[in-house]
Amino acid sequence: MDNLPNCIPLCAKEPKTQEPICIFGTGDYGRSLGYKLLQCGHAVVYGSRNPQSSKFTPTGADVLSHFEAAQKASVIFLAIHREHYGFLNELTEVLSGKVLVDVSNNLKINQYPESNAKYLSSQVPQAKVVKAFNTISAWALQSGALDANRQVFVCGNDMKSKQTVMDIVRTLGLTPLDQGSLLAASEVENYPLQLFPMWKLPLLICAAFTILIFLYCTLTEVIYPRVETKEDTSYLIAISIPNRVFPIVSLILLALVYLPGILAAVLQLYRGTKYSRFPDWLDKWMLCRKQLGLVALAYAFLHAIYTLVMPIRYYVRWWSNSYISTQIKTNNTYPFLNYYAWLSDSYVALGILGFFFYVLLGITSLPSVSNAVNWREFRFVQSKLGYLTLVLCTAHTLVYGGDRFIYGPFYRWYLPPAFVLSLIIPCAVLAMKLIIIVPCLDTRITKIRQGWERKGKC
Amino acid sequence: MDNLPNCIPLCAKEPKTQEPICIFGTGDYGRSLGYKLLQCGHAVVYGSRNPQSSKFTPTGADVLSHFEAAQKASVIFLAIHREHYGFLNELTEVLSGKVLVDVSNNLKINQYPESNAKYLSSQVPQAKVVKAFNTISAWALQSGALDANRQVFVCGNDMKSKQTVMDIVRTLGLTPLDQGSLLAASEVENYPLQLFPMWKLPLLICAAFTILIFLYCTLTEVIYPRVETKEDTSYLIAISIPNRVFPIVSLILLALVYLPGILAAVLQLYRGTKYSRFPDWLDKWMLCRKQLGLVALAYAFLHAIYTLVMPIRYYVRWWSNSYISTQIKTNNTYPFLNYYAWLSDSYVALGILGFFFYVLLGITSLPSVSNAVNWREFRFVQSKLGYLTLVLCTAHTLVYGGDRFIYGPFYRWYLPPAFVLSLIIPCAVLAMKLIIIVPCLDTRITKIRQGWERKGKC
Amino acid sequence: MDNLPNCIPLCAKEPKTQEPICIFGTGDYGRSLGYKLLQCGHAVVYGSRNPQSSKFTPTGADVLSHFEAAQKASVIFLAIHREHYGFLNELTEVLSGKVLVDVSNNLKINQYPESNAKYLSSQVPQAKVVKAFNTISAWALQSGALDANRQVFVCGNDMKSKQTVMDIVRTLGLTPLDQGSLLAASEVENYPLQLFPMWKLPLLICAAFTILIFLYCTLTEVIYPRVETKEDTSYLIAISIPNRVFPIVSLILLALVYLPGILAAVLQLYRGTKYSRFPDWLDKWMLCRKQLGLVALAYAFLHAIYTLVMPIRYYVRWWSNSYISTQIKTNNTYPFLNYYAWLSDSYVALGILGFFFYVLLGITSLPSVSNAVNWREFRFVQSKLGYLTLVLCTAHTLVYGGDRFIYGPFYRWYLPPAFVLSLIIPCAVLAMKLIIIVPCLDTRITKIRQGWERKGKC
Repeated sequence: MDNLPNCIPLCAKEPKTQEPICIFGTGDYGRSLGYKLLQCGHAVVYGSRNPQSSKFTPTGADVLSHFEAAQKASVIFLAIHREHYGFLNELTEVLSGKVLVDVSNNLKINQYPESNAKYLSSQVPQAKVVKAFNTISAWALQSGALDANRQVFVCGNDMKSKQTVMDIVRTLGLTPLDQGSLLAASEVENYPLQLFPMWKLPLLICAAFTILIFLYCTLTEVIYPRVETKEDTSYLIAISIPNRVFPIVSLILLALVYLPGILAAVLQLYRGTKYSRFPDWLDKWMLCRKQLGLVALAYAFLHAIYTLVMPIRYYVRWWSNSYISTQIKTNNTYPFLNYYAWLSDSYVALGILGFFFYVLLGITSLPSVSNAVNWREFRFVQSKLGYLTLVLCTAHTLVYGGDRFIYGPFYRWYLPPAFVLSLIIPCAVLAMKLIIIVPCLDTRITKIRQGWERKGKC
Repeated sequence: MDNLPNCIPLCAKEPKTQEPICIFGTGDYGRSLGYKLLQCGHAVVYGSRNPQSSKFTPTGADVLSHFEAAQKASVIFLAIHREHYGFLNELTEVLSGKVLVDVSNNLKINQYPESNAKYLSSQVPQAKVVKAFNTISAWALQSGALDANRQVFVCGNDMKSKQTVMDIVRTLGLTPLDQGSLLAASEVENYPLQLFPMWKLPLLICAAFTILIFLYCTLTEVIYPRVETKEDTSYLIAISIPNRVFPIVSLILLALVYLPGILAAVLQLYRGTKYSRFPDWLDKWMLCRKQLGLVALAYAFLHAIYTLVMPIRYYVRWWSNSYISTQIKTNNTYPFLNYYAWLSDSYVALGILGFFFYVLLGITSLPSVSNAVNWREFRFVQSKLGYLTLVLCTAHTLVYGGDRFIYGPFYRWYLPPAFVLSLIIPCAVLAMKLIIIVPCLDTRITKIRQGWERKGKC
Repeated sequence: MDNLPNCIPLCAKEPKTQEPICIFGTGDYGRSLGYKLLQCGHAVVYGSRNPQSSKFTPTGADVLSHFEAAQKASVIFLAIHREHYGFLNELTEVLSGKVLVDVSNNLKINQYPESNAKYLSSQVPQAKVVKAFNTISAWALQSGALDANRQVFVCGNDMKSKQTVMDIVRTLGLTPLDQGSLLAASEVENYPLQLFPMWKLPLLICAAFTILIFLYCTLTEVIYPRVETKEDTSYLIAISIPNRVFPIVSLILLALVYLPGILAAVLQLYRGTKYSRFPDWLDKWMLCRKQLGLVALAYAFLHAIYTLVMPIRYYVRWWSNSYISTQIKTNNTYPFLNYYAWLSDSYVALGILGFFFYVLLGITSLPSVSNAVNWREFRFVQSKLGYLTLVLCTAHTLVYGGDRFIYGPFYRWYLPPAFVLSLIIPCAVLAMKLIIIVPCLDTRITKIRQGWERKGKC
């Protein structure tokens, strides 16, 4: 219910508002949380080490000692660092049976052997510990995080107290997500610390290829003419060369999306079973296929636009003009060649269709879309359409190559044109795929994936 | 919480892990499930017909007879085919009061009169049957389906046992979705068998129109010149002709999205009530409007790109060059015509705006977006913006037509140019819409849709 | 489970279907709801003021007096207007302990001091009131709202009765969403009445700027030549002028997305605390940043396409042709200028990259995507990538400007070219941002946002 206003004020009559919600800790998070709770009609009482000294707490909330505050409430938020949980030992009897909400986060992933919530419940075994709110920053509470992530992951072993906390979450206009028992706490605590963990490897691979190809193209198209014919073609660096790098890297990445699947199949064929783990590198690779594909799509998108702006560029316009005028001056007109028309059109058409399916794949990998399709449909789209895309894009490059492959002048310093390099991996992948889907091998793989093992049951 | 690692290991101390989870059946699914459960810290015990003979079960799980295994656990997964549920009759007393999880799937939709889960509960009435996991393939369990659908639909009549199963689901790093009572089981069992059921009809319609228009264009633009003037224009097949087919079919499909709504209104006007069912074909048609629209959008997208690449094509470049050179040689310059400038620009502009709203409609039909808007907003976007799009695209085609409508040479073999055909349905739809929104009719329809009936209450 | 068929029929054997569901009110909504419930296998009984007179109720449901009907069922839907809740007072004893489902909506937002559901529970305190179904229109129930919003918000104070209602919702093939206690009712009732409340302000701002810039461009590019040199350039209104308006407004709006954040920082620096509310206008502004950004993206999208179609336009083709022919006739060829090649290419490249990140921002603001990232990742994308986009787009405009800034002829009637105006706000924003991220200030702001206050704790 994303577009509901930011919190649901409780009217004073409500019985449950009579009982205040207690917050231990008057630090930033404690205060922000207090503000929010008050703002949404809850009564709030703070528990503090030295109540009189703790100023700046929201007006309307009174500050007491931990003990007094705990007595007043049945739900207690712990807005203090894990390091200070120690003092709770003295409060065990007053806390027993009460709902302790652990909102703490750590500074780095898996900082401690067990989750803060788990540690807390070991400190105060009689209390019902619930993990929540750690995914919502103080800033988000303050400024009413409308357009940010409003999900609050809640987990705990006691069903009833979890419900209580989830209702409080809802009154703050946030969306509670039940994550099950307190065992999930460690995951929930790690969650807000991640920064696109799945994207690091794909982006790294992409960057490496990008730099490599860029240097290669600069060598053959800027440095070569500068050295050989002293002409300055540096202006190619702005668009022409990027527009070689993007498609080449995009095609390579797309191939890398489907390579691990094939390697896995080969490995299973060789081992004759699916019940032995893949090497780690292969697992990692397989898990980041989606991200690899999306990076490839981004590059394909850039390639598309870089290509479409060609006629607008001064460089292109100038050449076509001079081409025409020379043609007229020398008074020789080139005849229209059906062959060329076919070549250029079909290569463009292949590119467009490839890009189209590329985009389709991208759309289906949107969370909400992939959640709306079942496993069978997802497999169909990702493998069938995926390979179709790979075939189209490879064909696009091959046709583009046309007779350039053998045509001499393109080999500067005996270096093949860049697009030739881009074809190696895709063609290898497609070849291997062709071999694998040979009936006899295919049935074998299917059997293995259905649990059959080579030296079958005796 | 899509991007949480794949499963949440339970630490050995956990009391609940002491009690093992029982799996009946050592087949592929049983094994994959066992691996996953062990991997996530659960203890697993298998129940098998002949324990000693069943090898290849995951190490760490012991295999017992069905009876012994059932005794050890309170949650029992049935990883066996519905056909073999028979033997459970002998185990009724040991199974009574236990949670039986039915993970079975069928081979085709609605294979049996009642759902497998229902059948199971009729076999073992004393057990608490829960349907779950059938949407997760063994392969997905094995390879940790990170980027696939991780939703596990859970349904059952007993609230508590449903909760137990949902917590197990969470510990495996999957997302449980409560589907209510066991009555939902048949739907849940059909779900993973579907392959885009809603898309079949729209794609069929689209394919039919595509082939038809393609042949028509090939006839008038390739075969006609070949026959009449012996010239070879076959190269048009690569881009030029597809770029006629896409917009034409796209426009027709878009019109077909709004036609059923109008027919429904007419039908209701005629019947004077909304409480009588529409004919089946109309119902079917109305239900696949969204998919029709998305196919139309895909074609519009292709049309856009095919149009934008025009200046890059050899064919186009060659013609413009020869055009200029002839112009210079013959030394006659055509004056700049404001009229033409207006015509060409406004037709392009209409096309762009039409495409823009097309895309907007597509975005709002993304599950996550359409879930974030309420019914009123959804109606507004889909009907108001939808008709605006239809009007813009039709106008785009009309202006494109310009004076071609009457201009003779375009009628080859007395056939009208293809775009004329594309205008029939859209214009008809818009005309009917215009009639319907005439005040008197409009108010009548509104009244009917608010439940009023012609021979009103006596 | 969006793509499950529309409702899950209960088989007659089901015990729970024996007991009918009662509906008070035989109006449109009551009937539609009745049809749907019957269709999905529930038994239905209507409660009506004068049972014999109320025809047109679905066949299979019998109509009784309110009292009789209420006796037969434990779940009672109130399909009547809040104004008529009065008569329930006489039924208190028969209604006590039963589940009363309030489906009512109001005509305008916050029509009454308290929500209808609240009012109802005050009328019949002994009954368990549950708010539900108000987001589903009668029309949606009738025509099985497959491709519309199928979420049913459910809220109520009694857990058990809420569960009952949610199960009924599921049997109708709809998705229940627990909204917590009855306090949420007022929000739930307001929800279906909204029509893009968050979009009004952004669209207004956008419209204002659009008109302003459009008039300015028309003045300098259509009216000026008409007056000064009597030439008719009105055809520019179709594409050329819009293609000035779109980028200019887009850039301004993008800057306006980041301006409030800076103002807030300045304000906090000045106040030395974050615990005092921002002025209302700033709050409003901050809350509609996302929508502002999306409108800006839409305009950027239009700008991109309007630019790409340039070579196709008659106007452009004509000029380039005449340019070439004059060049040839006068027989003077302009040399190729590296400087110009660099300028034109780099300005195009900047534009493309800017647009690319624009689109990336748009994608991450899709609900399903922004829900899949945590707060830290969201902040990273929206602030880091956002500013990168702003920088790229501003640079794009600056390079486009090139030497036009000082080049006289462009100042018609002493008016600067329009793009100059577009640079004012973005440059201001970037300048302020640069000042704010000066280390000393930056650390100060960070401290403040972490809860530190200038005259710190005594």
